[in-house]
Amino acid sequence: MRIDRKRLEQSLEELGRIGATERGGLTRPALSDEDKRGRDLLVRWMREAALRVTVDQMGNIFGERPGAPGRPPVMMGSHADSVPTGGRYDGQLGVLCALEAIRTLNDQRARTRHPVTLVVFTNEEGARFQPAMIDELERIGYLGAEPCVPRPLRAYLELHIEQGPFLEEEKLAVGVVEGIVAISWSRLTIHGVQDHAGPTPLRVRHDALVAAADVVAGVRRIARDIGGDLVTTVGNLTVSPNIVNAIPGKVTLSIDMRDPRDATLDRALPMLDRIVGEACEREGVTCALEHYWHVPYTPFHREVVETIEKAARATGAGYRRILSGAGHDAQYMAAIAPTGMIFVPSRDGRSHCEEEFTPMDDIEHGANTLLAAALELAETS
Amino acid sequence: MRIDRKRLEQSLEELGRIGATERGGLTRPALSDEDKRGRDLLVRWMREAALRVTVDQMGNIFGERPGAPGRPPVMMGSHADSVPTGGRYDGQLGVLCALEAIRTLNDQRARTRHPVTLVVFTNEEGARFQPAMIDELERIGYLGAEPCVPRPLRAYLELHIEQGPFLEEEKLAVGVVEGIVAISWSRLTIHGVQDHAGPTPLRVRHDALVAAADVVAGVRRIARDIGGDLVTTVGNLTVSPNIVNAIPGKVTLSIDMRDPRDATLDRALPMLDRIVGEACEREGVTCALEHYWHVPYTPFHREVVETIEKAARATGAGYRRILSGAGHDAQYMAAIAPTGMIFVPSRDGRSHCEEEFTPMDDIEHGANTLLAAALELAETS
Repeated sequence: MRIDRKRLEQSLEELGRIGATERGGLTRPALSDEDKRGRDLLVRWMREAALRVTVDQMGNIFGERPGAPGRPPVMMGSHADSVPTGGRYDGQLGVLCALEAIRTLNDQRARTRHPVTLVVFTNEEGARFQPAMIDELERIGYLGAEPCVPRPLRAYLELHIEQGPFLEEEKLAVGVVEGIVAISWSRLTIHGVQDHAGPTPLRVRHDALVAAADVVAGVRRIARDIGGDLVTTVGNLTVSPNIVNAIPGKVTLSIDMRDPRDATLDRALPMLDRIVGEACEREGVTCALEHYWHVPYTPFHREVVETIEKAARATGAGYRRILSGAGHDAQYMAAIAPTGMIFVPSRDGRSHCEEEFTPMDDIEHGANTLLAAALELAETS
Repeated sequence: MRIDRKRLEQSLEELGRIGATERGGLTRPALSDEDKRGRDLLVRWMREAALRVTVDQMGNIFGERPGAPGRPPVMMGSHADSVPTGGRYDGQLGVLCALEAIRTLNDQRARTRHPVTLVVFTNEEGARFQPAMIDELERIGYLGAEPCVPRPLRAYLELHIEQGPFLEEEKLAVGVVEGIVAISWSRLTIHGVQDHAGPTPLRVRHDALVAAADVVAGVRRIARDIGGDLVTTVGNLTVSPNIVNAIPGKVTLSIDMRDPRDATLDRALPMLDRIVGEACEREGVTCALEHYWHVPYTPFHREVVETIEKAARATGAGYRRILSGAGHDAQYMAAIAPTGMIFVPSRDGRSHCEEEFTPMDDIEHGANTLLAAALELAETS
């Protein structure tokens, strides 16, 4: 059983026009008008594929293809929101490959023991909302009735772009994802003394941005010093009052650190504390540092990973086992269901940018792997 | 002849309520609704003081107190806009001390050979507009008819807060300003490669913010290395896309450098070029650096400076000669008229912040110095 490459390509094209940017990317933040239009199109396609559509209280959309009564479904999907000026593959490719797999089951009139459910998750990127999105859900008509609670699932499968360079470098079409790296997010607020950039001699300056620059350099140094797979990033930095002729009085910045081993982050976090303390002391500024979010390494389910690997082999795709450096919907699903992921390559390893690109040949291999793995887990009846 | 301290204090209080912030500061950006209300109050006061009010095509407001026919006026004033969350003294204190000096001339029925003109300049801070402010001028009703051309002036006098620590440290009420330091503004745009903060190994990263942090540290180092009076500031820094989990693809930042000697900036600018080049090379990013604004050292007019010094001595104020580290309306007026400035102290040297403060005792000394200098230059008839 093989997916219809042309139909998948057309769907990707059509959905990709909603929120398209001039330079070939996508701006479709969660619960924006663009997100609503994207959801509407997906729901139409789900109904055309005879799926039973429900929406839960977080706006997650489910479309179920029935199986034998009383069986927990095999769920497949991803998210359909994007970061601002993001790309056309992150998220929606996983939704559309799952939809294409279900359309193929329909074409073949396949009957499965377990239902097969397509899911479109709300606000995976978190680019627009930290909490408080219920009002917006209502506005766009996707505040559903279904309570948001774990239900029994046979398995959860998600196809996603790799967002890293390895598959492309090794000329492989499919990554069989073994787990997701540990992630730590911290937030630093530096309070200096806002003053005029002209008549304020160096000796009386307490410049929040000078201290922040020291921290940015230090955060990079942590990754260099520890080495291995550790990556560290300051992605967000905001200066106040942010005008040419005022010494910055306040800077807030984010620190993102990731490594496959929890123990590495346990080493990195105290180094960050020390770097921040020293930078602020040097400039005579005060600060508040919060380590506000931490997820440990998330291993995927062995049976599901092996099923995906077998499916990749069967479809003839070049594949390897791989780790995910990015968080995904699958990370949360792993807590409530046997979960696995399929990666397809990212050109130049790039994502969260308009230049995101995955060749259709690889997408076809990935979608066929997803279909084969889903069929295996759903058990042909 | 002495100004009325109580009346001046009340005017400062009343004008300071327009755009007042909760923490005792001022947000009254040029041509905002608050600026309009401030202007309206000033125009009312100018008319109550029997001044002939005109507005030019840049929204600058003039109020003339007549002298003998055909004589060029002595002009006094400053600006009435503020930076966002600025203070209650920067700008408006100079306008109100000039108004108070004119009110005192009226009280005393003084007749002067030269007219005495109060001026309120538009958009000195430049915090809201880079050009294109004509539409807003029209909106708030201050797009005047007078062409914006130099007219003959006997002199231009401006009282302003020091915005530095020297007068307060030396317990002096008045600074007799000899000139304004040379100022150089540069703008740097760094183009890195926007990418996902998770799955992108260090070896393929080109992080615009890592390079920018290097530049911020380098800009501070220029001032440390050259020493003397040189001050260097990165006040504005903007990151794109500025989200926690994306490697910054683009950073823009400003560089402000000031020194009393033009030769010092001539040394500092090539150092900046080198620092930027090295920082960008290290991170493998590209950049564009523009040195887009430069004003050489502006000496004030010797006769005017001496007149101010004499006036300060006569009023009994403790005073010293001083340089201005900040640009002022007087800097531009110096090109078209004999110009001088009077400084009053800034508590803790602070300005462009809500904590700006100058004691009324010092303000009174400053205003009396302004009045005496204006009288001397306008020649009692």
